[in-house]
Amino acid sequence: MSYAVTMGLMKESELLAWLCKNAVKTATVPVPIGDDMAGVSLPKQMSRDGLTLLKIDQCLDQVHFNLSQHTPSQIGRKAINRCLSDCAAMAARPTAILISVALPMHVTLPWTKRLYQGCRLAAREAACSIVGGDTALWDQRLVITVAAVGVPWRHAILRSGAKAGDALCVSGQLGGSILGRHLSFSPRIQLARRLTEIVRIHAMMDISDGLAIDLPRLLSMSGAGAEVDAARIPVHPDARRLSRRDGQNPLHHALCDGEDYELLFTLSQRDAAKLAGTGLPVSIIGKITRQRNAIILFNDRRSQPWPAGGWDHGPSGRPMPQSRSICAETRD
Amino acid sequence: MSYAVTMGLMKESELLAWLCKNAVKTATVPVPIGDDMAGVSLPKQMSRDGLTLLKIDQCLDQVHFNLSQHTPSQIGRKAINRCLSDCAAMAARPTAILISVALPMHVTLPWTKRLYQGCRLAAREAACSIVGGDTALWDQRLVITVAAVGVPWRHAILRSGAKAGDALCVSGQLGGSILGRHLSFSPRIQLARRLTEIVRIHAMMDISDGLAIDLPRLLSMSGAGAEVDAARIPVHPDARRLSRRDGQNPLHHALCDGEDYELLFTLSQRDAAKLAGTGLPVSIIGKITRQRNAIILFNDRRSQPWPAGGWDHGPSGRPMPQSRSICAETRD
Repeated sequence: MSYAVTMGLMKESELLAWLCKNAVKTATVPVPIGDDMAGVSLPKQMSRDGLTLLKIDQCLDQVHFNLSQHTPSQIGRKAINRCLSDCAAMAARPTAILISVALPMHVTLPWTKRLYQGCRLAAREAACSIVGGDTALWDQRLVITVAAVGVPWRHAILRSGAKAGDALCVSGQLGGSILGRHLSFSPRIQLARRLTEIVRIHAMMDISDGLAIDLPRLLSMSGAGAEVDAARIPVHPDARRLSRRDGQNPLHHALCDGEDYELLFTLSQRDAAKLAGTGLPVSIIGKITRQRNAIILFNDRRSQPWPAGGWDHGPSGRPMPQSRSICAETRD
Repeated sequence: MSYAVTMGLMKESELLAWLCKNAVKTATVPVPIGDDMAGVSLPKQMSRDGLTLLKIDQCLDQVHFNLSQHTPSQIGRKAINRCLSDCAAMAARPTAILISVALPMHVTLPWTKRLYQGCRLAAREAACSIVGGDTALWDQRLVITVAAVGVPWRHAILRSGAKAGDALCVSGQLGGSILGRHLSFSPRIQLARRLTEIVRIHAMMDISDGLAIDLPRLLSMSGAGAEVDAARIPVHPDARRLSRRDGQNPLHHALCDGEDYELLFTLSQRDAAKLAGTGLPVSIIGKITRQRNAIILFNDRRSQPWPAGGWDHGPSGRPMPQSRSICAETRD
């Protein structure tokens, strides 16, 4: 059935009853939780390209969250929103979510309910239904796997559409998400929708591993390069806060921390200019170039190769100390 | 992207390159692995009810398989086929699969490739594409989570459609799957398709937890009961083999072992008669009744309440010994 529960100590029937309680037939979910699969009616007329978009994403205890530090509601929220951020990145409306949970033996039924409530709240914020799932109990750490189905608001926006001369933009501010935003962020679904209404986005993705790693991915798919103006990268106050603690440059945090779940996108310079007066939380940070490499420009007109995957040497040319961080320090 | 890999010791780039190697644009998968989500073009014209069917299912080491005993190819195959069996149960054509894998640190790249090859082979047998996934490395046991998207061949067949007077049928033979069939089974996708072409199925599900547990689920959703003829339950030779080993009654194995992945369905008596000459691997095991309970009839005309969830007392009325099995022994 679309909600299977295999459990040991926890009262299986009680959790299952609770999970199924809200499973009612609706126009968009004619076959809710309780059958072998969930049946949804996708809003086909909306998408011009006829595409159905699919994503699966797992959240692992001590990799993506920490069960001993974070609340079940925070964990559930993050698991859903990580997946929905990919819907935002494709300019898609999330329409259905499936959740698979492998619960460690020691969690209680109330804790598990709060985990699902976190999931439900995040789904509701995105006007999206949780249509099915699978729950099991085991003697290992918590795993939450989320699959999302989306339908493009207009048409799907891929990573591969960036054109030489395009403006390169990011939403929001980057860095320091470890201070809490990696749990509390809201995926940029409505911003992506709004953007597709007023401009023509050429290429887009979400920043989950950090701009340093993610920009080259977009460029590689587009067969293009970029010049990024270091001074224009929107550095989050959390990056500065973290910087005061660890002595690491704030720009380093903005480039390398990851888990920003902001949008990285390109569009024509003319369209980019249109965004100026809209009040949308968007910054132009550079431009797309024909050369297939990326560089970062500093205020003093020095340029450096893009720190994709980490620099072996700092901008000064000195070897960097061993670091667990994905890229070495940069200077702004 | 639709294939993210977060890894430690294993060469991330090498696995990712291998995973993406076969990711080519096709008419049905216009946006393959490599973007934030996969984009598929679902065969909408085929389904009369306009439904898109969704399922997620997890396979856990030492719960659903044993990494130290089973080959990676067997494990991958089972993970996919468990999920595709639900497509069969809805009389749906599986169209797209997503796979999320949390790999334990100790597995090697060649082992991981064989795991994915097992997945691919199973998907190919069902003429279905693996369109995306997520892979991570962690210090816990292997988790494979599979999400499937299906489109009904004609219309989705639910659990809730059984009518009083219907014939109750199962495909194949039941019991003893632990001897190997729980890994090697093929989901009954083509049988379900064929059935929808020649008869009108009223209700259907797959038998994953065993007929003892699964029949009451179908009856509960249909608001009906059933009379099952014990002598007509098709007992697999594996159940008899297991019986010779453990002294348990073969019928007990057929009812309670689970992991048969056969179809349980109901249809009118007239349609059931049509199946007789077809050569399809289907047995009529009883009929649907108006009373909301199920009973099992034995050759000597004794009847017993259905052993759903296990009997507290054996047919003789004597208390059963403590057993880890989901239902106590039955007599045929």
